[in-house]
Amino acid sequence: MGPIERKERERLALRRRILDAARLLFAELGYEAVTMRTIAHEIEYSPRTIYLHFKDKEELIREICQEDFATLGQEFAKLAAITDPLERLAGSGRAYAGFAQAFPHHYRLMFMTPLPHPAEPGPQDAPDVDAYAFLRGCLAEAQAKGLLRPGWEDPDLGAQVVWGALHGVLSLYVTHGDDPFLPWRSLEERVEGVIRIIQDGLRLTPAPVPKTGKR
Amino acid sequence: MGPIERKERERLALRRRILDAARLLFAELGYEAVTMRTIAHEIEYSPRTIYLHFKDKEELIREICQEDFATLGQEFAKLAAITDPLERLAGSGRAYAGFAQAFPHHYRLMFMTPLPHPAEPGPQDAPDVDAYAFLRGCLAEAQAKGLLRPGWEDPDLGAQVVWGALHGVLSLYVTHGDDPFLPWRSLEERVEGVIRIIQDGLRLTPAPVPKTGKR
Repeated sequence: MGPIERKERERLALRRRILDAARLLFAELGYEAVTMRTIAHEIEYSPRTIYLHFKDKEELIREICQEDFATLGQEFAKLAAITDPLERLAGSGRAYAGFAQAFPHHYRLMFMTPLPHPAEPGPQDAPDVDAYAFLRGCLAEAQAKGLLRPGWEDPDLGAQVVWGALHGVLSLYVTHGDDPFLPWRSLEERVEGVIRIIQDGLRLTPAPVPKTGKR
Repeated sequence: MGPIERKERERLALRRRILDAARLLFAELGYEAVTMRTIAHEIEYSPRTIYLHFKDKEELIREICQEDFATLGQEFAKLAAITDPLERLAGSGRAYAGFAQAFPHHYRLMFMTPLPHPAEPGPQDAPDVDAYAFLRGCLAEAQAKGLLRPGWEDPDLGAQVVWGALHGVLSLYVTHGDDPFLPWRSLEERVEGVIRIIQDGLRLTPAPVPKTGKR
């Protein structure tokens, strides 16, 4: 390979390092507290070098969020084959939880950090499968199929409540997961618990209660 | 009043200012990023003056958390008269949401910021009414009274799921509340929604579905 290919490879590798360092710093310290200089210092390059790759901090965070939403979107896309919309909803909850466990820094940055507005992925630059739209779609379909208890006619409210409920279990895990003063149950138990409460709470006819010994 | 009383009043007033500035800074920038020097600078005193009041950052955050947990505990104590434990649970969800709205900085500091471990309120220095114990108590009582669906025999798991679900709605409000790309429903609607899902999801016999025009 000639010098041009090598240069391009090096350029992409450095770009990758900048993105990874920035994601970590934004998630650890918060978007506001991090400067282009902090990022440069972290990867031992001059701030000037960073500016050759990214015009400013906003361009950087926009690209990170797009990458991360795309990763999450790929997980959600695998669930399309599940026909019961509330089972699909449960599957997306598990995928979301798996994402938070596998990529805690991405998770913190995407969902636990206030971001500058123009940097949020908007309709014009949303990834192919938008996670919120996916949730909302499950709720709307469940409503259309008559699966939901009354009070859940608004799929946006439903999506926001379901997302919030899952997110809370995950974010307590991220911030207080190793808090020694609480008898924490495993994250898996908690995720399954909140999915169960969501399913039973939404369904017009929840899974029947199994008969016990009593008659 | 003599100079001794005046001095004591001034001492307490300065202590108050230190606590309030520290709470704000910890919540805004994160516990790790804030130094005693940052706090001193904020209130325009020398770091030396801060050290006359608080031995270190940990003592400061421990005191702030104790104050804030006590405030929340007072709200929870008002609910003791509600006899149905799941209604009491719902009431505590509303109180928790009211607290987050009234004191977003306290909320961020207590529930959205990783804290150093010794500074977390432990059994030895828990406020009189411990919010977690309150939740756990509602779940245990509901279980004892036969109100819960199967699968909720463990009151710790129940408390962690319920807390997580509420917390998620509130923390999305705190970090993404003004995100212009989502059709956010009001916080009140979302809080009532998550409380409804929790109640219907937990109860062995949820509120009956009202008959509609269809027969």
